[in-house]
Amino acid sequence: MKTFLDCIPCFFYQALNAVRMVTSDEEIQERVLREVLRLVSAMDLTQSPPEMGQKIHRLIREVSGNPDPYAEVKQRFNRLALASYPEMQSKVRASQEPFETAVRLAIAGNVIDFGVNPGLKEEVVRQSIHSALEAPLNWDALKSLQAAIAQSESILYVGDNAGEIVFDRLLIEQIGRQKVTFVVRGSPVINDATMEDARMTGMTDLVEVIDNGSDAPGTILEDCSAEFRQRFKMADMIITKGQGNYETLSQVNRKVFFLFKAKCPVIAEDVGCETGSYIIEVGGFGGEKLR
Amino acid sequence: MKTFLDCIPCFFYQALNAVRMVTSDEEIQERVLREVLRLVSAMDLTQSPPEMGQKIHRLIREVSGNPDPYAEVKQRFNRLALASYPEMQSKVRASQEPFETAVRLAIAGNVIDFGVNPGLKEEVVRQSIHSALEAPLNWDALKSLQAAIAQSESILYVGDNAGEIVFDRLLIEQIGRQKVTFVVRGSPVINDATMEDARMTGMTDLVEVIDNGSDAPGTILEDCSAEFRQRFKMADMIITKGQGNYETLSQVNRKVFFLFKAKCPVIAEDVGCETGSYIIEVGGFGGEKLR
Repeated sequence: MKTFLDCIPCFFYQALNAVRMVTSDEEIQERVLREVLRLVSAMDLTQSPPEMGQKIHRLIREVSGNPDPYAEVKQRFNRLALASYPEMQSKVRASQEPFETAVRLAIAGNVIDFGVNPGLKEEVVRQSIHSALEAPLNWDALKSLQAAIAQSESILYVGDNAGEIVFDRLLIEQIGRQKVTFVVRGSPVINDATMEDARMTGMTDLVEVIDNGSDAPGTILEDCSAEFRQRFKMADMIITKGQGNYETLSQVNRKVFFLFKAKCPVIAEDVGCETGSYIIEVGGFGGEKLR
Repeated sequence: MKTFLDCIPCFFYQALNAVRMVTSDEEIQERVLREVLRLVSAMDLTQSPPEMGQKIHRLIREVSGNPDPYAEVKQRFNRLALASYPEMQSKVRASQEPFETAVRLAIAGNVIDFGVNPGLKEEVVRQSIHSALEAPLNWDALKSLQAAIAQSESILYVGDNAGEIVFDRLLIEQIGRQKVTFVVRGSPVINDATMEDARMTGMTDLVEVIDNGSDAPGTILEDCSAEFRQRFKMADMIITKGQGNYETLSQVNRKVFFLFKAKCPVIAEDVGCETGSYIIEVGGFGGEKLR
């Protein structure tokens, strides 16, 4: 997905929220915003928004001297999600449609996104779990997702955020753990899940976990490791979570299933839904959108 | 008031809304946003936000080739306010505290601000009239305003937006029309009231109306005409409406009464109130804040 003009105010909003998280020094805050002005001025709008996000958050880490400013946030939401896991697992087990319920909860967990939702409260996550079963869903896409899973032996499941990856466990258990390789970011960016979060939440005990070698808040293939690109090419099926993965892979040269909550109006417009919707989208060339 | 870092995302948001109003050509929209990036990069943050607003809206008028892009909006809200005037006048006449009621309605009319509220619906203005009597008010400031009016012979009443100036009539009738000179902007900027709006709404028949010689969405004294500056200096009392006048005059070297609705979080923070509050603020050097 290209960068829309509406993304420009949002880059500054996100940069300001991020730099305020790492320092209360207004001179540093201003310096970061001026640097973001320079970066955005030079930006090619055919790039996807996470390419700018990557640059902004490299800058935040550089000026703060902190290689992982969201470490505490990530741990906190991993713990919250782990504490909610038994309740969520009971919901899936008690459901007449356990696959659907697991998909819903996996999407509900996508609310844990400090790029779009800085200062997210734990209460919002609990509400998201409670309302997950009521959100309207694209039934055709759900059936298509289920059918593709049944026909696939090797599934690359590209995760998004810390905390959210505990929600992903529910769906991976439905898919069958032996089929799945879970993907985390190569190094910290915003609150995106890395190998550390996969270990903390037990994902590494459940399935093979690999990292993509990149610090972008999405999956910019040319920025990922050759190993990851090979896995991306060879897997029978790709499932990804979150807006950043949709923004970077929706035009890629293979079929991809995208699961996310449409949290910003630009994405909602691109997908053709209301902001806040639960999305199961089949995209990439070879996806149903292009048939 | 200086420009806060939070104003930066908002400049782009406002520029984008404004350029979309004048053209659907995305190339022109992008060109405007890139020019705003250049302007904001070079900006001195000790300037007030309306100094950037002035530059942005000059740019919008230039690229659109339209000297008054908000002409239709201004006329529409003048008409709406004129249609509501008898109802509002009845509210004032029926009130046990007609001065207070007129102040409340004058502040309620400040919702008609296309800088902060692009795409404002007429229904919101009607709701604002209906809820005007219930908003909490600073009683000390109200009494101080009333006392200052009683002691003043010449009052400069600096208006803000088209439509809103009909609401101002109610307060001017309470003040006594012989005391008041009403001030409009020197030429069109956003939906700010100009001489044309003063004529259309009958303000010119009620009191003397002068313009300030500037196209800033506020009152940047050094950008105003010498005539206006002289009137500003000599008047017994200054009353201004709206955020833009507060942002440009809150530090000025004389006492000023500011009436506005705090519509943005930056102003609310500066004043020390909740967003949406009705504000009567005594500012400028000589204002109560500095005693």
